Amino acid sequence: MAGGEDKKETKKAGAEAKKAGGGAKKANANGGGGGKKKEVKKETGLGLSNKKDENFGEWYSEVVVNGEMIEYYDISGCYILRPWTMSIWEIMQEFFDVEIKKMKIKNCYFPLFVSPGVLQREKDHIEGFAPEVAWVTKSGESDLEVPIAIRPTSETVMYPYYSKWIRGHRDLPLKLNQWCNVVRWEFSNPTPFIRSREFLWQEGHTAFATKAEADEEVLQILELYRRIYEEYLAIPVIKGKKSELEKFAGGLYTTSVEAFVPNTGRGIQGATSHCLGQNFAKMFEINFENDKGEKAMVWQNSWAYSTRTIGVMVMVHGDDKGLVLPPKVASVQVIVVPVPYKDADTQGIFDACTTTVNTLNDAGIRAEADFRDNYSPGWKYSHWEMKGVPLRIEIGPKDLANSQVRVVRRDNSAKIDIPMANLAEQVKDLLVTVQQNLYDVAKQKRDACVQIVRTWDEFIDALGQRKLILAPWCDEEEVEKDVKARTKGEMGACKTLCSPFDQPKLPEGALCFASGKPATKWTYWGRSY
Amino acid sequence: MAGGEDKKETKKAGAEAKKAGGGAKKANANGGGGGKKKEVKKETGLGLSNKKDENFGEWYSEVVVNGEMIEYYDISGCYILRPWTMSIWEIMQEFFDVEIKKMKIKNCYFPLFVSPGVLQREKDHIEGFAPEVAWVTKSGESDLEVPIAIRPTSETVMYPYYSKWIRGHRDLPLKLNQWCNVVRWEFSNPTPFIRSREFLWQEGHTAFATKAEADEEVLQILELYRRIYEEYLAIPVIKGKKSELEKFAGGLYTTSVEAFVPNTGRGIQGATSHCLGQNFAKMFEINFENDKGEKAMVWQNSWAYSTRTIGVMVMVHGDDKGLVLPPKVASVQVIVVPVPYKDADTQGIFDACTTTVNTLNDAGIRAEADFRDNYSPGWKYSHWEMKGVPLRIEIGPKDLANSQVRVVRRDNSAKIDIPMANLAEQVKDLLVTVQQNLYDVAKQKRDACVQIVRTWDEFIDALGQRKLILAPWCDEEEVEKDVKARTKGEMGACKTLCSPFDQPKLPEGALCFASGKPATKWTYWGRSY
Repeated sequence: MAGGEDKKETKKAGAEAKKAGGGAKKANANGGGGGKKKEVKKETGLGLSNKKDENFGEWYSEVVVNGEMIEYYDISGCYILRPWTMSIWEIMQEFFDVEIKKMKIKNCYFPLFVSPGVLQREKDHIEGFAPEVAWVTKSGESDLEVPIAIRPTSETVMYPYYSKWIRGHRDLPLKLNQWCNVVRWEFSNPTPFIRSREFLWQEGHTAFATKAEADEEVLQILELYRRIYEEYLAIPVIKGKKSELEKFAGGLYTTSVEAFVPNTGRGIQGATSHCLGQNFAKMFEINFENDKGEKAMVWQNSWAYSTRTIGVMVMVHGDDKGLVLPPKVASVQVIVVPVPYKDADTQGIFDACTTTVNTLNDAGIRAEADFRDNYSPGWKYSHWEMKGVPLRIEIGPKDLANSQVRVVRRDNSAKIDIPMANLAEQVKDLLVTVQQNLYDVAKQKRDACVQIVRTWDEFIDALGQRKLILAPWCDEEEVEKDVKARTKGEMGACKTLCSPFDQPKLPEGALCFASGKPATKWTYWGRSY
Repeated sequence: MAGGEDKKETKKAGAEAKKAGGGAKKANANGGGGGKKKEVKKETGLGLSNKKDENFGEWYSEVVVNGEMIEYYDISGCYILRPWTMSIWEIMQEFFDVEIKKMKIKNCYFPLFVSPGVLQREKDHIEGFAPEVAWVTKSGESDLEVPIAIRPTSETVMYPYYSKWIRGHRDLPLKLNQWCNVVRWEFSNPTPFIRSREFLWQEGHTAFATKAEADEEVLQILELYRRIYEEYLAIPVIKGKKSELEKFAGGLYTTSVEAFVPNTGRGIQGATSHCLGQNFAKMFEINFENDKGEKAMVWQNSWAYSTRTIGVMVMVHGDDKGLVLPPKVASVQVIVVPVPYKDADTQGIFDACTTTVNTLNDAGIRAEADFRDNYSPGWKYSHWEMKGVPLRIEIGPKDLANSQVRVVRRDNSAKIDIPMANLAEQVKDLLVTVQQNLYDVAKQKRDACVQIVRTWDEFIDALGQRKLILAPWCDEEEVEKDVKARTKGEMGACKTLCSPFDQPKLPEGALCFASGKPATKWTYWGRSY
């Protein structure tokens, strides 16, 4: 029956693969149906059949599977997050959770289910989500009295209780966060991490007495998101404000960190920090008695980052050998591979590997040795390159003789011999160097894609070249709609990514590239995920 | 509209309260509807309207709400886990996650959704869960091609992929765990933590080459569950094996830690560690080539503990003043309350409180001060007693003069004066003492309820006295069914809780209390949650 299972899965994943770019089918074949069981493991180590520059979509689908981060699931748009993924998620979670607790934000857990009445209370909000909401209508054999929705996000789940808990100014600020799963039943191009029907995230929901406090927190959280991308995932991001058209449904304004994928020339929203203003407070009657004894409405924020972060990391750093993990998020930072020869002192080599791992572990470095006897050193090299381990240490007879180890960097294949004497310090430094280099290279590539345009022709030209476009804009919703309409095509329409907080000076009398009206700000435009 | 929301909620919670014991309605009134907003906070501090010994059900529903652990939700059987609850969950999670990682068990995340075909593959298993499964049949306005189930547990979600990933003996053992939410749409007596339609848990799923390895892990995990209850929650539990009737649907055998609630005379299954044998392996074709090159089937385990643990803690330790939290799981272990008088050196007292908190925090003790100026010290005492904080430190003029603090224990109200000089050490010791005392008292109460019976009459008598019954049993399924049938009543039938691993010697020729046949083992019997 599992055979049938496999077939069904291959079919589904295959269908999905077409959208995702065909990679899934291969990936799945790699996963192996009855026939090719024995090859599976081998194949994992034998590189990718797609190249990042030639066929990005297939390359991506293949690398997340062969890197053992993702397994395609028999329900389209749902994916299995394997340990190699979860360890990355947990490292980011540990950082973020500590930081928000410093800000006196507390964790809670609200239910997965929402009743229709509450879900639909905020009209703009529900309009934004309604088409993607999954509904539970049955339990066992019996129909439910009322269908119940699965949270696509938890504003409407939480705010009736904020209204109950918040009475006076002393109950403010109320600052809660939850780590949970949410469901958005999208039908367009499911893609592992980037666009999935269920994903993991944190969602923060805070309420303040004044707008000033809310505004301040929006930026504090956005800075934490920048640090996740730049300090942990080694990905440069642009902090900015979303346009009215792109802001969170029902909110006052949305800020975001925006990443860019040079290979596809697409922007990707990395994480968002919203100021909801008093709109939800009005709908859910979240009022309080202020210090003057007057009735007032709270100011609210909500903010979130999801497992999408991991997909962006794969897209930006991965190469034709597989994943490339930044040391700070790699569960294995150093893989130690023994390289014995027939007549060599094999035991001595194995012992040296063990000693090396212990030395590194004692120094707080996440290192492991691969002693498997059914794989050649060469196979192990490609296997751990596929999984993106930042540093490989090879120990052979020569190294043993010179009491040194051979270190190979995943990011640039550089080889360095390190004396065992000061192994820990040098490896630590190398990990820092690799982390920094990944960021620098990613930034160079990203910056090389930035194109400043002033006219519609320049804009179309840059769009054709898959650039990250920075243009003077009149900031009118109608104009953005018009640009989207005029750029619609099989590659998808171009829209605003954000207006960067870091604004270049706008020249005297600058005009909007699209409308010719006076420009009010520089804004990034591009196709996006 | 929020008013309407409140009403709807009160109604639902009220309905639920009848089952849960009526407490919810009061609790909810406490939560406050439009009218009594100002009183709310006060009420929280003003004790409980139900007594644990007089009306346990109402007391429980009231204490979880007034202790700010739970908020009733507008969907019956779903509850909001507030920060006071989540911090306890996170502390247990931290312990358990580290321990299983030492055992080389890795975290992963599988989808929330299951397709019907897979869910129904293992017949006994699905029979056990089918009535409780929630089904998604719509997304947005459109019906799904096939209804999709929400996981009640993840055996059927995961094992098709175990079949894919496991090829040879080198792929074993495969040891995965996930922290997630599951849904069991039960209609009988929803009760916060104890019986809810969605709950949080960890579920471990492991596969081994040999039964011996599986058997060993079952007990290693069970020991971790014992430590969670006894070392963290200060609750004595009995380790044992479930009867054939009570074991996990589709498994080979189930072990559990069983707790007991003296007030209701009910046993409660604390956590379970199952050996699944090869049954699922057969259904899902999880085969591997063993080291002799022969095709073999894996041996599997699955094991889980859930947020139910927290409900057991409330039931066992709580009293008429509210929650009683064991120090090891309390997010606030010490609350410091300034006790100023008109003519006293208020600033000096506040400074002393701040110094005290800092001293304790530096010593790794979780301490906070309550400086709120709109509540009296007396109100604060009851408020923090309601929330179950293990130690209260009062600092007034006299304490300041004698450079000492007054410490009050939550578990037994004992008052101790401690010189500020060696505050940290003494408070640390006190916390250990309180933790131990909670366990000792709970054990005395539990042991006092154990009743050994040898005949049916003794059994019925003991059951009437709400005892935890230990009886010689013939271990026949028909006999257990018969006992359940004969004890059915409004209080619910009596069943086996477990056969303890720690078996008293069975007397020569001992007979089963129920069937009169030769007894093969001692088994615990009782009504249960």
